[in-house]
Amino acid sequence: MRLSAFIEPAKMSLEQEIQTIIDHKTKPLGALGQLENLAKQICLIQQTTRPELTFPRVVVFAADHGITEAGVSAYPKEVTAQMVLNFVQQGAAINVFTRQHGIELHVVDAGVDVDFDAALPIINKKVAKGTASFLASEAMTDAQMKHCLNAGREIVDDYHASGGNVIGFGEMGIGNTSSAALIMHYILGHPVAQCIGRGTGLDEAALSRKGEILELVRAHHGQLNSPEAILQTVGGFEIAMMCGAMLRAAELRKVVLIDGFIASSAALLAREMVPESRAFFVFCHQSEERGHRLMLEAMEAQPLLDLGMRLGEGSACALAYPLLQSAVAFMNEMASFESAQVSNKTS
Amino acid sequence: MRLSAFIEPAKMSLEQEIQTIIDHKTKPLGALGQLENLAKQICLIQQTTRPELTFPRVVVFAADHGITEAGVSAYPKEVTAQMVLNFVQQGAAINVFTRQHGIELHVVDAGVDVDFDAALPIINKKVAKGTASFLASEAMTDAQMKHCLNAGREIVDDYHASGGNVIGFGEMGIGNTSSAALIMHYILGHPVAQCIGRGTGLDEAALSRKGEILELVRAHHGQLNSPEAILQTVGGFEIAMMCGAMLRAAELRKVVLIDGFIASSAALLAREMVPESRAFFVFCHQSEERGHRLMLEAMEAQPLLDLGMRLGEGSACALAYPLLQSAVAFMNEMASFESAQVSNKTS
Repeated sequence: MRLSAFIEPAKMSLEQEIQTIIDHKTKPLGALGQLENLAKQICLIQQTTRPELTFPRVVVFAADHGITEAGVSAYPKEVTAQMVLNFVQQGAAINVFTRQHGIELHVVDAGVDVDFDAALPIINKKVAKGTASFLASEAMTDAQMKHCLNAGREIVDDYHASGGNVIGFGEMGIGNTSSAALIMHYILGHPVAQCIGRGTGLDEAALSRKGEILELVRAHHGQLNSPEAILQTVGGFEIAMMCGAMLRAAELRKVVLIDGFIASSAALLAREMVPESRAFFVFCHQSEERGHRLMLEAMEAQPLLDLGMRLGEGSACALAYPLLQSAVAFMNEMASFESAQVSNKTS
Repeated sequence: MRLSAFIEPAKMSLEQEIQTIIDHKTKPLGALGQLENLAKQICLIQQTTRPELTFPRVVVFAADHGITEAGVSAYPKEVTAQMVLNFVQQGAAINVFTRQHGIELHVVDAGVDVDFDAALPIINKKVAKGTASFLASEAMTDAQMKHCLNAGREIVDDYHASGGNVIGFGEMGIGNTSSAALIMHYILGHPVAQCIGRGTGLDEAALSRKGEILELVRAHHGQLNSPEAILQTVGGFEIAMMCGAMLRAAELRKVVLIDGFIASSAALLAREMVPESRAFFVFCHQSEERGHRLMLEAMEAQPLLDLGMRLGEGSACALAYPLLQSAVAFMNEMASFESAQVSNKTS
């Protein structure tokens, strides 16, 4: 997979212009910290010194995972479908937080193990009723993987048609921290034990068992040499769709909000497939899931929030969104030393 | 100074009730991390399981500092007054961020070294045109300190009359990181070198000089045995007013938003004067100023944001405010496992 018409290299003159504007705002040099980097990133994505955010949307991709049969999660896999219905009924955390910030929420059935009523506001991109267990075979076929990547692209094309320029991705899928941990292991090379975590709430014994199961997976599949092979072998339908969606969103120069550990594993795959996509990603939260810190470090990402959350659903995209608005607002609205007649630094 | 009619001890039954509601929301146990602690804190402050935030306000206290004569800051002290005018003209970061979140902004002249036009929307609580340099004498007289504590209380009484229940405090005062560092040193006992930082942007040599000057201050004044003595000797008018305001806000059971390093030094004094006040403080940001981490640890505070900022002005109060709204919103609006018919944890 290769993207066409990709990112023009940032014009140095624009980057310098942005930095100059930031440095002349009425504040000590660098005093807005990460908000300054964020403002600069958004400006470079939009190739402007007057950034704006339009029609924010969060898309939650839901799917089931064959590996849950092996007992890797604290919750039964039925919860995936139940939570999708909770999203539809406006009862989940992501409903609350998107409503709070005027963010449109879309829910995608990427491969949940039930048939939803077609009348419900769920975007049907179902590939199959859950992946195969990667203890015994690849999680999905090559055709299924391509279907997923393409479905993700379609979701973003639809968003693009609405005129929006900032989109976040989250997920719901009991068992999917196992996929994310293995993707991390295969791409970054960290031992499996450093990649796994408690997910929705495993105790010490169950965490240890999860590690053992994932070691079996590793022994079964041997080396995997491309992001596509990794995705097909140990991925999930929701992760594959997020990956395709992130790549398309970068291609269309959207600001791309990345949620937690699982969404970050999709971003890691996307970056592996197309390194230039990374410049469009805003990492919203440092998850409690212990592999996440290493994953973010590998992508040189400084997450905006670090609230000890481990929820998924795109929740961090929604919670961090006001910080993006703040970055854009200070860029457009703050006075300069000159306009406000404030003295600059003495030295 | 002692406050009357203070906090009733939290009813265990209410605390348990709050925790039960949080634990039954449709999310893994604890998955909203610090937002859960925040929701609980707000509920306990308001003694309810249905919290709400009304008429948010940020108050910025501005004052000048005699110690600036010794060259402890990267900016000339004229900047204090210039920035107050910038606040009035809506050009500063705090204007942008309070506007973004519908937060009312009040600016208080606690002791700036100019006479502002009385027609400007600046609350006049001026004690004097800046403190005395604490290299040679106490920063303020006992009467001035009492005036400040009382002025802070009046500011909050005025807010209380408006019916609001969440108020943040910030400051503007070239030179005031020196006061904050010394307050920290005297209360927590850390060596001065661990308490000082670059403020608005000192280089290595200037930072070293700042440390030497503050060591001279320490040698001159010897031991200081009460928070009142510390405040009077090395404080600033804006710090003293914030301290009085924080204590009054706690007394009136407001949610109290604490900005960065300097506001935290006022909170440290407030807690030293009335330990129960701590329960009402929400620490909004881990400042880049290096003493701040130790200060927050001493108060067992987990700041909501860690964005590498070092601005003051109450900016972090405004930036963190949406997280308080999120905490309140999930508490009031999220479905429970029972109401959404979602299966709870298997074990």
